[in-house]
Amino acid sequence: MNKLSFKGAIPPMITPFQADGRLDLDAHIYNLKKWNEVELGGYLVLGSNSEAAYLSEQEKLSLIEATVLHTKEGRPVIAGTGMESTLETIRLTNKAAALGAQAALLLTPFYYKGKMNESAIIRHFMTIADDSDIPIMLYNVTKFTGINVSSRVVTEISAHPNIIGMKDSSGNIGQLIHFQEAALDNFQVLTGTASIWYPALSLGVTAAVMALANCAPKECVQIQKYYESGKLEEAKALYRRMVPLNTAVTATFGIAGLKYVCERAGFRGGYVRNPLSELTIEEKTRLDAIIEKAELLK
Amino acid sequence: MNKLSFKGAIPPMITPFQADGRLDLDAHIYNLKKWNEVELGGYLVLGSNSEAAYLSEQEKLSLIEATVLHTKEGRPVIAGTGMESTLETIRLTNKAAALGAQAALLLTPFYYKGKMNESAIIRHFMTIADDSDIPIMLYNVTKFTGINVSSRVVTEISAHPNIIGMKDSSGNIGQLIHFQEAALDNFQVLTGTASIWYPALSLGVTAAVMALANCAPKECVQIQKYYESGKLEEAKALYRRMVPLNTAVTATFGIAGLKYVCERAGFRGGYVRNPLSELTIEEKTRLDAIIEKAELLK
Amino acid sequence: MNKLSFKGAIPPMITPFQADGRLDLDAHIYNLKKWNEVELGGYLVLGSNSEAAYLSEQEKLSLIEATVLHTKEGRPVIAGTGMESTLETIRLTNKAAALGAQAALLLTPFYYKGKMNESAIIRHFMTIADDSDIPIMLYNVTKFTGINVSSRVVTEISAHPNIIGMKDSSGNIGQLIHFQEAALDNFQVLTGTASIWYPALSLGVTAAVMALANCAPKECVQIQKYYESGKLEEAKALYRRMVPLNTAVTATFGIAGLKYVCERAGFRGGYVRNPLSELTIEEKTRLDAIIEKAELLK
Amino acid sequence: MNKLSFKGAIPPMITPFQADGRLDLDAHIYNLKKWNEVELGGYLVLGSNSEAAYLSEQEKLSLIEATVLHTKEGRPVIAGTGMESTLETIRLTNKAAALGAQAALLLTPFYYKGKMNESAIIRHFMTIADDSDIPIMLYNVTKFTGINVSSRVVTEISAHPNIIGMKDSSGNIGQLIHFQEAALDNFQVLTGTASIWYPALSLGVTAAVMALANCAPKECVQIQKYYESGKLEEAKALYRRMVPLNTAVTATFGIAGLKYVCERAGFRGGYVRNPLSELTIEEKTRLDAIIEKAELLK
Repeated sequence: MNKLSFKGAIPPMITPFQADGRLDLDAHIYNLKKWNEVELGGYLVLGSNSEAAYLSEQEKLSLIEATVLHTKEGRPVIAGTGMESTLETIRLTNKAAALGAQAALLLTPFYYKGKMNESAIIRHFMTIADDSDIPIMLYNVTKFTGINVSSRVVTEISAHPNIIGMKDSSGNIGQLIHFQEAALDNFQVLTGTASIWYPALSLGVTAAVMALANCAPKECVQIQKYYESGKLEEAKALYRRMVPLNTAVTATFGIAGLKYVCERAGFRGGYVRNPLSELTIEEKTRLDAIIEKAELLK
Repeated sequence: MNKLSFKGAIPPMITPFQADGRLDLDAHIYNLKKWNEVELGGYLVLGSNSEAAYLSEQEKLSLIEATVLHTKEGRPVIAGTGMESTLETIRLTNKAAALGAQAALLLTPFYYKGKMNESAIIRHFMTIADDSDIPIMLYNVTKFTGINVSSRVVTEISAHPNIIGMKDSSGNIGQLIHFQEAALDNFQVLTGTASIWYPALSLGVTAAVMALANCAPKECVQIQKYYESGKLEEAKALYRRMVPLNTAVTATFGIAGLKYVCERAGFRGGYVRNPLSELTIEEKTRLDAIIEKAELLK
Repeated sequence: MNKLSFKGAIPPMITPFQADGRLDLDAHIYNLKKWNEVELGGYLVLGSNSEAAYLSEQEKLSLIEATVLHTKEGRPVIAGTGMESTLETIRLTNKAAALGAQAALLLTPFYYKGKMNESAIIRHFMTIADDSDIPIMLYNVTKFTGINVSSRVVTEISAHPNIIGMKDSSGNIGQLIHFQEAALDNFQVLTGTASIWYPALSLGVTAAVMALANCAPKECVQIQKYYESGKLEEAKALYRRMVPLNTAVTATFGIAGLKYVCERAGFRGGYVRNPLSELTIEEKTRLDAIIEKAELLK
Repeated sequence: MNKLSFKGAIPPMITPFQADGRLDLDAHIYNLKKWNEVELGGYLVLGSNSEAAYLSEQEKLSLIEATVLHTKEGRPVIAGTGMESTLETIRLTNKAAALGAQAALLLTPFYYKGKMNESAIIRHFMTIADDSDIPIMLYNVTKFTGINVSSRVVTEISAHPNIIGMKDSSGNIGQLIHFQEAALDNFQVLTGTASIWYPALSLGVTAAVMALANCAPKECVQIQKYYESGKLEEAKALYRRMVPLNTAVTATFGIAGLKYVCERAGFRGGYVRNPLSELTIEEKTRLDAIIEKAELLK
């Protein structure tokens, strides 16, 4: 079989909004063109950092369409089309496919978390895979969902020819190895956080979907280049420099923080949507110091 | 001021689906007519037990419309129109209002839980209240959202004339009293679980939105009648008899269990939607024993 | 069988320390004499509020001895002699028995929480019950232990003639009813928190071990008296008045707060032991306002 | 300054018990002599895997004494002398020092977890460091304590000349880097789990206290040797082979599992103490398969 696979740093793209909350597609396209200039491994549209939870279906489709249209030739576009309902996920995934997305990254359903046991999750992904027009991947992100999939789930779903991988955002290297061991052939485990980008590379991971790749795409790419050319010390040093910035734009300051750093790095971050809050001046000052220490703008 | 207030047992109505997953509006109307025969205090359409997470917007609107149309004269219809986005919540709430819903019960947003601090939640509800055509209530349900609102949030939002109350599903009596104390005048605290129906009544709560009112509406109503007529021992005895059944149709067996007991009690439960799973035969047997012990069908 | 049973409000007694951290037995005896003047239902020595985690075995034995010696005739003394190890618990419990304690309240072991499944907990309690010279009770306190026992555990252990009851500190009325239903005859479920004292009374609970009984013993006793003499409105009003004070001396300000309120109410609270911290002046001011609102000193 | 520092794999030694629960010091000495034959970096006596929660003080002192006496010349002995009380911790630590332990690894206190904020934890460690006769280290192990220390705590305590490091058992590489960055000079961050042994080495960690070093000491040592001699592929391959075995002897089967694998590897594991349970035959069979796959006995 000749499955789609991924290589490189992939930004889970932010979605710029205007001050009144409207989607700013122009800013999105502007960002995309800037990202196209870096050797990124593809794009994730509608991931957690896109504020997908706040987007209408029409906005989601517009974003997919614009992304496919403006993506540099040869770069895969992954769409985050997971919904709580199995059938709705199939429906939205196939709309994304029709617009040109090459793969879908699907959240584990989680609202009724007490009932989302192994068999419910396996059935959800197997059913979608059967009916999806593009290959799918599982997105394991416990901090948002409260769900952490087991190795058994990985073994089962990796047997399906249309399920080509997973993104694990746990930051837990031991778990990542368990997932790698549990997966059957031709199933790719991507890391979902820059906090383990270097160690993950050293353990055979070849692609990462990580928030940091929005605002520090060159650095994310460079860590992998260093690693692959055997410059391990340089890779490690750059990775270590990026870890505090990554923590800042994820756990500490969230999407508003990520957008602020994007702005400072020349992208168009725009506003966050309510109920998310913009950064305070004091938070921006703290973040400025972290940007400086990470030498991001040098 | 003459705010809307609630009295009595209110079922967060299940949504019957057909075997292929399609919405079964006829079954919903059938159930509604049966519930109309009992002295319930109103209806919640699109609550957690409705599998709202699995419904499309069109299905939501159909359910609101059918509910308003078939509800017994004088009974308020509350719509669960909470979305993650502040603006989307306003939009959907006003559609519900246009269809005749009298109030909206709105989940605290929770996907980006690390950022849903007091001020974000307060701003979310105040903004919606400003623009909503019907009064709104806050829905605090930690087991699904991971968010538990503070007394300060209750004090702040209760000052808004268009925020008329909240539903607390914690089952924690001490917390319920704190919410009652924290609220300004004309703000109603409803309990969201039958597990404290009798104690809540004895502490001044007058209305409850509770899963059990789907399958045991008469019993839920009777507990309150006994209480209000001073028959405390009868009220307590019936309440105690219902607690294990309530646990079964919520924590233990979830919505599939609730629908099964509804079927056994003469309602049309129908199927659950994927990724939820139907009960196994073994689970049904366990549930039959609990129904028997609760003397539900006598 | 003629098992020991409890009735009334029971303080899990604080342990006064001097400024240098030394045990202040005189202050303890002073407090005991004051509590003796109120119609309390007995005493718990070495509960969580005693800072038992910070006491040496010799200090524990001194406290049991002094308590037994100075307790008003006829009031049972319960000792908190639970340890992580089954054998150590038996050893300490029998020392307490030799000093005159009438019963032991034993924490579920919890350090290796991943392995403290139902069968491990049942075996722990059954083994201790076999070898204990006094009757024992299970102490279920999830906020400290991370363990919440199941109804099955209650059913199993309640069959042992030397296991006479349990204290549940969850504040969850639904769970308390499940425990009552699960227990075989002659097994008493005590509540472990004043946050549900009135509702628990109304559901057949006759005794409570609650932090609040340290600093507000008369009020805790009076709630029950009102309840038992049919003055339900008075019982409820007093209970409601006490709930915020109870929250303050438990969840909000912890043992340092409890000791401060004890001091203000005429008891000798003394210092807390390190690593616990004394209240700041700002915290004392906040607590003064809560005391005032509860009308504790009137 | 010339602080003590650690290098290599350090077993948090199991404590063998006899069938009746008595401490089996001979078996402990037997194990120690076998571990002495491998190039381990020292020993931790009284860590979590020693069932320290079940040991009396006299047993603890016997174990320290025996360990110091039988340890190979030049290998540091670390004692786990953390207690909940600050003063008790000082007392026990100095007894350990008098018996020849070179350093102490101290659990964060956790029973009153709601009050164990940054300042309480910092004061606890600073006070102990002032009065301890040997250097101390902080032991951060959230799965047992529910406490996860912040970078600020690390910065503060690392300024104390008698606090020489910490063990972080989180398995979270991003957090480990934050701790490394937060620490002032001459403060060593050890990893507390074999699940990140190779990545931790690649990021400058030079010592690990890990359960797996009990039953697979040669393999744990060999991973580091390979790494340091530049044989990265061999290091990674061996590490990957060990990860599933490590999960088995920690999260999955706990101390009973670890002791079973120790027995199979020629050590004297002995029995666990109650309330821990021995493995069932079925569990042993599952563990045998994991041992086989890890090629431990080849």
